Amino acid sequence: MIGGGQLARMMIPAAVELGVEIRVLAEAEGMSAALAATAVGDYRDRDTVLAFARDVDVVTFDHEHVPQEVLHALIDAGEAVHPGPGALAVAQDKLVMRERLSELGLPVPDWGRVETAAELDDFIAEHGGSAVVKTARGGYDGKGVRVVRRAAEVAEWFATLAEDGNAGALLVEELVDFRRELAQQVARRPSGEIVAWPVVETVQVDGICSEVIAPAPHSAGRVADLAEDIAVRVAEGLEVTGMLAVELFETVDGRVLVNELAMRPHNSGHWSMDGATTGQFEQHLRAVLDLPLGATGCREPWSVMVNVLGGPAEGEMVDRYPEMLASHPTAKVHNYGKSPRPGRKIGHVTVSGDDLDEVVYQARAAAAVFAD
Amino acid sequence: MIGGGQLARMMIPAAVELGVEIRVLAEAEGMSAALAATAVGDYRDRDTVLAFARDVDVVTFDHEHVPQEVLHALIDAGEAVHPGPGALAVAQDKLVMRERLSELGLPVPDWGRVETAAELDDFIAEHGGSAVVKTARGGYDGKGVRVVRRAAEVAEWFATLAEDGNAGALLVEELVDFRRELAQQVARRPSGEIVAWPVVETVQVDGICSEVIAPAPHSAGRVADLAEDIAVRVAEGLEVTGMLAVELFETVDGRVLVNELAMRPHNSGHWSMDGATTGQFEQHLRAVLDLPLGATGCREPWSVMVNVLGGPAEGEMVDRYPEMLASHPTAKVHNYGKSPRPGRKIGHVTVSGDDLDEVVYQARAAAAVFAD
Repeated sequence: MIGGGQLARMMIPAAVELGVEIRVLAEAEGMSAALAATAVGDYRDRDTVLAFARDVDVVTFDHEHVPQEVLHALIDAGEAVHPGPGALAVAQDKLVMRERLSELGLPVPDWGRVETAAELDDFIAEHGGSAVVKTARGGYDGKGVRVVRRAAEVAEWFATLAEDGNAGALLVEELVDFRRELAQQVARRPSGEIVAWPVVETVQVDGICSEVIAPAPHSAGRVADLAEDIAVRVAEGLEVTGMLAVELFETVDGRVLVNELAMRPHNSGHWSMDGATTGQFEQHLRAVLDLPLGATGCREPWSVMVNVLGGPAEGEMVDRYPEMLASHPTAKVHNYGKSPRPGRKIGHVTVSGDDLDEVVYQARAAAAVFAD
Repeated sequence: MIGGGQLARMMIPAAVELGVEIRVLAEAEGMSAALAATAVGDYRDRDTVLAFARDVDVVTFDHEHVPQEVLHALIDAGEAVHPGPGALAVAQDKLVMRERLSELGLPVPDWGRVETAAELDDFIAEHGGSAVVKTARGGYDGKGVRVVRRAAEVAEWFATLAEDGNAGALLVEELVDFRRELAQQVARRPSGEIVAWPVVETVQVDGICSEVIAPAPHSAGRVADLAEDIAVRVAEGLEVTGMLAVELFETVDGRVLVNELAMRPHNSGHWSMDGATTGQFEQHLRAVLDLPLGATGCREPWSVMVNVLGGPAEGEMVDRYPEMLASHPTAKVHNYGKSPRPGRKIGHVTVSGDDLDEVVYQARAAAAVFAD
């Protein structure tokens, strides 16, 4: 696994149970996945990555940022790489993503490729006076995304494009009037088998995932079917291998539109570690190893995951364990081994049960014990 | 954790999720828990153990075999040791165990301490012509246990005692007419909190645990209450810290008697990793760290665990994954990273669900794929 963050860390338990040896190329010493880090180095460096990959059976990723030339060098060296460069190219560039999804006929917000402020102002004028502008690369957790009413509000992004000299462009999208956000996860093996979890509802605060309810309330039937159908078409159309998360808008007029894609285990699927028969980390391992995939049903009627964002102002998450664990005996705490810092995802809590109100309450209250 | 077997291995995922750093003193290189092994050495060697324990917050165990003098050396060095030497002394010697349980007024089979063949023949004559003889130390998985009709059948055990010169004795017990075997697990913190899982039914084949059904069918009410009460009294009476498993006989005349004790995570509790809100490995960590204990309810109505004993005659467990995982998508496989060998516990499979017949079928069939 390339990348030593919390997604790599949470792969370790799944690997231990399956009896799969996991090795991590971490960006630095002491990262979340340090226990399995057999190498430390720069994932953008071809030789570092090739050396790391030499003795493994399959290469997979904690993030989507490994450059295409490095991915292709791995393929040229005969390594199995999942997901492959072709799929990752779509996750790496939001303009490419919108183009490919549109080609596949999938429902997406109205969008455009804009190279100038004038083009952007035209798009805004045609879409009710506002729009969402995104940088094609490098955005995550709300970064590189801005809601604007005029092109001048992203003037510095255009300036950066001009300096870049690569004839770059920004992605602009209609501001979708959505009822809520959903996420649909599927796993796909190289040999084609694909399985879907129930669609979940995600709650974002300031562009960062705060909470996930699984399954999404009132989703059974049409919404669930639409979401699953979209994610399966994305996975098959882009030949994604491993985990795929499709972030979706459920619009006020009842449509389901694709917002973003992630080709790895994803925050929207953390609930599955505790709440589903097969968790996303185990499933990712099974998928990239081309092993048969596991059942994706819920172990209990409801699961709610709440992120621990930032964490205690003083001390570490573990300092709050006596209070948290005593007050919330059904809460499952996942600690990423990261130092608290405002806005940083340092852990999450999942609660499962029969009564959604109670489950939501317990999960939020448990996570709140870790907040300042 | 002292000891690098599968129990230490299965502690690793729980430690990763809780954000607890786990270090293992393994008996050899390449053991099940090698990923967390920071030292390799002999747990009977005082200096080896003291050096390993120097920088940890708490010492706990994969087995009960660390000698009392080493345990006391740890205590003298100021280490927190859970379970402590006093509790472990009872688990280390079956005669001591029977004496202490009898003192505590707990229901046990009729038993006796026999130093000579004549004493044993007398016990047999008084108990219907047969009895179970056990060596006080060193038995496990059916070793050191023999059903006899005359003392001559354990003549070599008496001979060994005589050579030993320690005035040793054998434990003899009535041959209990039992309907089935049960196991009751509890966890207890140093500060006193104690929680119990549902009582489970265990199936032994040739003295080795083969299968566990959780909860034990038809146990709700009297049997469950008796089992829990016994285990709580054992844990409190012996001041056990961490996990305690009490193996029980449910007799044909409706009594519940204590068979054996284990003061560590135990095979009878492996189902809880998948089937309960809090698994025994996480709970053991919480208990020995004196953190509040987790909820012990079942996530699904039934869970069945089947051991993988021996494993494939050729190859490894993973070679059977394509067949096993494809046929049993709800099965959770736990691979201990050990080479197959006749009779060796190299993994287990757990299936959970609503329909006990289906769950039993799936778990047995899944485990059978790994058999020769």
